Amino acid sequence: MIYDIIIIGGGPAGMSAAIYAGRGGMKTLLLEKLACGGQTVKTYEVDNYPGFGDNPSGAELAKRIEEHARKFGAEFRTENVKEIRNASGPIKTVVTRRNEYQTRTIIFALGASPKKLGAKGEDTFAGAGVSYCATCDGAFFKDRDAVVVGGGNTAFEDALYLARFCENVYILNRSKRFRAAASLVEKVKKNTKITIYTDIVVDYFDGNQTLERVYVKNTATNARGFINAAGAVIAIGVTPDSALAKSCGVETCELGFIKTDIYMKTNLPGIFAAGDVRTTPLRQIVTAAADGAVAATSAVNYVNMK
Amino acid sequence: MIYDIIIIGGGPAGMSAAIYAGRGGMKTLLLEKLACGGQTVKTYEVDNYPGFGDNPSGAELAKRIEEHARKFGAEFRTENVKEIRNASGPIKTVVTRRNEYQTRTIIFALGASPKKLGAKGEDTFAGAGVSYCATCDGAFFKDRDAVVVGGGNTAFEDALYLARFCENVYILNRSKRFRAAASLVEKVKKNTKITIYTDIVVDYFDGNQTLERVYVKNTATNARGFINAAGAVIAIGVTPDSALAKSCGVETCELGFIKTDIYMKTNLPGIFAAGDVRTTPLRQIVTAAADGAVAATSAVNYVNMK
Repeated sequence: MIYDIIIIGGGPAGMSAAIYAGRGGMKTLLLEKLACGGQTVKTYEVDNYPGFGDNPSGAELAKRIEEHARKFGAEFRTENVKEIRNASGPIKTVVTRRNEYQTRTIIFALGASPKKLGAKGEDTFAGAGVSYCATCDGAFFKDRDAVVVGGGNTAFEDALYLARFCENVYILNRSKRFRAAASLVEKVKKNTKITIYTDIVVDYFDGNQTLERVYVKNTATNARGFINAAGAVIAIGVTPDSALAKSCGVETCELGFIKTDIYMKTNLPGIFAAGDVRTTPLRQIVTAAADGAVAATSAVNYVNMK
Repeated sequence: MIYDIIIIGGGPAGMSAAIYAGRGGMKTLLLEKLACGGQTVKTYEVDNYPGFGDNPSGAELAKRIEEHARKFGAEFRTENVKEIRNASGPIKTVVTRRNEYQTRTIIFALGASPKKLGAKGEDTFAGAGVSYCATCDGAFFKDRDAVVVGGGNTAFEDALYLARFCENVYILNRSKRFRAAASLVEKVKKNTKITIYTDIVVDYFDGNQTLERVYVKNTATNARGFINAAGAVIAIGVTPDSALAKSCGVETCELGFIKTDIYMKTNLPGIFAAGDVRTTPLRQIVTAAADGAVAATSAVNYVNMK
């Protein structure tokens, strides 16, 4: 049996693709190695997926999207994909530990994970003050103090973002140099709500039910101290889960994100990408879901033309 | 008073932008000339906005998104924008019949409307068999017969799309020539489920509660007849509501859709576009909502850097 579309990854991008592929009459298989939902499941509260104004938990929202996706006839299987064979050919083979599947098209919805500091308390307070996305969670820290960890463009943009509605914002950078653009650094330096600390790393996160204090260490002097903060945005990068795509010849950017055009086409015929794993200006549930819709529609048109 | 962001248009793109602008601490105004919801409100049943698997009516879904958008502090006003002054400047003026508003940025979420045939019964059966979007409504015609009206790429793609799960598909084209790409025409001609009728126009739509028959007329012979069909997809084009944007110097494509980059930036500084009004591969509620999120995030970053 040959599938029309195999979707690899069951986050919002993959599940949305399953909706659009199923409705398009495609024989569709979605392969997810764990439970569906992707990063959404790890989100304590989702405040910004349009239409869900009652702040569902990430797990609740993911469940709603999964129930929706299962309506349209796509098969869902919990299997870890090991390898893609004949990725450039008309019939591609998707190899898992247990099975081999043949398909005309593949949608890589592999996702991405924020880099973690590895500091004590980081996991404990994740979703309860510790955040990896200012756009997602910043609003929860309104009128409070927040820290941003990192020294790149995202960290500096996040600090400006938070300074709009937080009381005080502290950027913690582990060295004296910033990777952020000079114009951004200059803008931040002019903002009276933002303080930049250099040579500072996070020692551990502390609080009661939610984050209250970030304990820090000066790497130059070994001095220790803490900052009172209700929020800590860790902005030290995002790692795309693109190894599988790369291994079969799909082109990525220098950071490892899959390159696509606006139709979500990759460099290989019949192979598409959607969601956090691709090079994109914003990684949100709604943007991933939109990517999935576009990728599936492109895959449907591709199959219909073969 | 100067707004940070004025969003013009209250469809899914504009309302999603209001969520992201409000959460970003921006002083935000959303101007909509009628009721919020855009094309969504005209949709009988929405089957493919991920997470809403219970087929809400378009009006219900629009209401949910609007309630969500109003949570984050954006002002909503029902006013028709007449003119934009100083569109390229740092402070732009948005002129309505009653007021003038000053703003640092504008998000054009002006929408687009499908072209109508103007045939009798078209409005009566809209959302009850007559559709302007195969991706949106095609699945409702599963195992039934459907017609597609038009002769361009979209009409031919829609016919292939429908042929996956409909019994029979009839393309009705008003002349002997097709605007669709030759490869698409060839593909359609090979599909045994699809019949192409040329020199055929729709006379009127008929049925009981829902569409049952499409009455047609041959423009060459004046012969009349009808086709039994549960669905009729009108694919004769989409008209962007971009006149306001064009009039202040925003660049559009030859069809009148606003050109943006992946950040939803237009050619003018501080002016962004989102949703159906822009050049985009797919016009769905979820893609419009994603556009709004991206446009607002870009506008927030723009304001924060000024």
